[in-house]
Amino acid sequence: MPSSKSPVVVTCTAPVNIAVIKYWGKRDEELILPLNSSLSVTLHQDQLRTTTTAAISKDFSEDRVWLNGREEDVEQPRLQACLREIRRLARKRRSTGDEDPRTPSLSDRVHVASVNNFPTAAGLASSAAGFACLAYTLARVYGVEGDLSEVARRGSGSACRSLYGGFVEWQMGQRADGKDSVAQQVAPESHWPQLRVLILVVSAEQKPVGSTAGMQTSVQTSALLKFRAEALVPAHIVEMARCIQEQDFPGFAELTMKDSNQFHATCLDTFPPISYLNDTSRRIMQLVHRFNAYHGQTKVAYTFDAGPNAVIFTLDDTMAEFVAVVRHVFPPEVNGDKFLKGLPVTPVPVSDELKATLAMEPVPGGVQYIIATQVGPGPQVLDDPDAHLLGPDGLPKPKPAA
Amino acid sequence: MPSSKSPVVVTCTAPVNIAVIKYWGKRDEELILPLNSSLSVTLHQDQLRTTTTAAISKDFSEDRVWLNGREEDVEQPRLQACLREIRRLARKRRSTGDEDPRTPSLSDRVHVASVNNFPTAAGLASSAAGFACLAYTLARVYGVEGDLSEVARRGSGSACRSLYGGFVEWQMGQRADGKDSVAQQVAPESHWPQLRVLILVVSAEQKPVGSTAGMQTSVQTSALLKFRAEALVPAHIVEMARCIQEQDFPGFAELTMKDSNQFHATCLDTFPPISYLNDTSRRIMQLVHRFNAYHGQTKVAYTFDAGPNAVIFTLDDTMAEFVAVVRHVFPPEVNGDKFLKGLPVTPVPVSDELKATLAMEPVPGGVQYIIATQVGPGPQVLDDPDAHLLGPDGLPKPKPAA
Repeated sequence: MPSSKSPVVVTCTAPVNIAVIKYWGKRDEELILPLNSSLSVTLHQDQLRTTTTAAISKDFSEDRVWLNGREEDVEQPRLQACLREIRRLARKRRSTGDEDPRTPSLSDRVHVASVNNFPTAAGLASSAAGFACLAYTLARVYGVEGDLSEVARRGSGSACRSLYGGFVEWQMGQRADGKDSVAQQVAPESHWPQLRVLILVVSAEQKPVGSTAGMQTSVQTSALLKFRAEALVPAHIVEMARCIQEQDFPGFAELTMKDSNQFHATCLDTFPPISYLNDTSRRIMQLVHRFNAYHGQTKVAYTFDAGPNAVIFTLDDTMAEFVAVVRHVFPPEVNGDKFLKGLPVTPVPVSDELKATLAMEPVPGGVQYIIATQVGPGPQVLDDPDAHLLGPDGLPKPKPAA
Repeated sequence: MPSSKSPVVVTCTAPVNIAVIKYWGKRDEELILPLNSSLSVTLHQDQLRTTTTAAISKDFSEDRVWLNGREEDVEQPRLQACLREIRRLARKRRSTGDEDPRTPSLSDRVHVASVNNFPTAAGLASSAAGFACLAYTLARVYGVEGDLSEVARRGSGSACRSLYGGFVEWQMGQRADGKDSVAQQVAPESHWPQLRVLILVVSAEQKPVGSTAGMQTSVQTSALLKFRAEALVPAHIVEMARCIQEQDFPGFAELTMKDSNQFHATCLDTFPPISYLNDTSRRIMQLVHRFNAYHGQTKVAYTFDAGPNAVIFTLDDTMAEFVAVVRHVFPPEVNGDKFLKGLPVTPVPVSDELKATLAMEPVPGGVQYIIATQVGPGPQVLDDPDAHLLGPDGLPKPKPAA
């Protein structure tokens, strides 16, 4: 129980999510309301997570934020929008008499520290996990309950999908004020225990167009994006939810690939065009199609976000063979022993017949490394005070020696 | 004047055309009727041409065809469709009494030899020039006049656009029998004398998906293709014709790039996806956009067909600088003196300021060579008997020593 002297401190973790029906383009830039609904898979925090500590104290003179150990500008509009929104919800809660007397005063300033356990170079949408974790942690420290979609969404649209585990739909909503643009769980993480996820980190020569700017240009210039959002995505959402409910892997996999390709098609239709896929990405796509053709069924799917890295979905019985095939086509250059991170995968041989069917010239180093993971739960509170990223003085703890 | 003893021999040339509004997908596979109208620029035959000789004689026992010196299977359905169609038109003409008494009998067999003056490796749509030349040459030898769109189209859809010089629209038509699916000149080759064309031949690691099979898969699987063909291309055609009529280069250039990107977007939306653009293609696109941004106006455009090679449009006052920029970003690896073929281009330096704006790391060998050309006329008859590819015996002449 917090004393009046030491700060109120809460530490939480939140997951990364990967969209299988893609979000691209806003109908409202200020409120971050999307052109279409999207649907994602929450990845397990054992492999990929953001950890955030929030502390509130009368002694703090201003709001401050540290990201991966470096202080950030707290005036960033999206950070401000999250803080404003959580304080609005806290105020509303208190005015309705639901207040927990232990929660801190709304006039007190907050310190926030956040770290990712994965390198930015992995090209994963760290902002989704980051803002979900911020929203969740602030809600705990301010004693706010209920749906946090709006708080997270104001930070980064897809962050609202990281508020839940398992399979999550971000419903676009219809209202102009965005109150119905919320995330909702389609199925919990326990629903499809065989599903596995591989992140293939691809060597990129240059930083791609950022997603915020990219989306804006797409909305302004791509007629195909508008058509996709209005006429095609609604049916994709319904079909994807069905595939998940029924654990229909081939259906899930095909639609995941088609939706990813269609999203990248709208990027290419943008002017000037946006290309997130590079030759290695396309080689991975070809590998997946040939692997599936060899097996006579869709056993593996790819999806790509705003960068060249592939996210692969498969089932537990196929993961070892597919990892072996990736290692065959993209032989590790230097880090053979560190090529595979995350879940353990038993090494298996690739048959000569499969190699011959793939008919792909090996490209050493094309894939830097693989992270093996699975579907996971939503944000978690860490009760261990040692987990706090902020010390009793409200400043980031020094990093423990590695 | 042909005697009754020696064969009737005619030799013609036909040009390559490059679509600026793309054709992709058939509504009728048999008649080769397109999903949408398309519009192309005819390239000059001084640089790129097909030459075809047709000979007819009572002494020939069967139809025979040689392509680049190698005998082809004359039973190929598309070759048969052209031969059938030209004989049908000749028969029709004779039945109406328009016959020239010198024209050979319809029961006589034909020998055809055809050569391209550009390597297949250039990835140019040789079938368009080839079937246009075949249609034009057969029409001459059979004494058929009038529009040959249907003859050429039955060989290869885009071949009908190579029947005219300058700027050509292939009108999709509405009729089920395809009689109104014809090529029509939008403006002659003399209309826009400043326009220049550069073909950037890109190193490709593997043969891409053929356009016939690619189109079929796209028609079957891409919702974006259907939408583009129905809802977007009609306005593109009208706008492109206006840009050409008014010699509006920035308008022409932007629409050319947008239409190319949209076509490749529909390829990516195909399942399994088709990728004709590789990292070098995308680098060329980026180079064009940065070059235009540096100049503050759209001075250069790219377009890509079913392969990684870029076709660049620019005006005569910009060609030398753009060639220099291509040489800067893609330094020739071995053939510095043979890097530029076709029209002469004065070497000019690239300013340090422009190099800095481009900010592109040179990729040696990414572009193999450049062909510089311009807008050109339609098919031509060669009167010189030395030009015949078939000898008096109706067989291909031996190749002259180089």
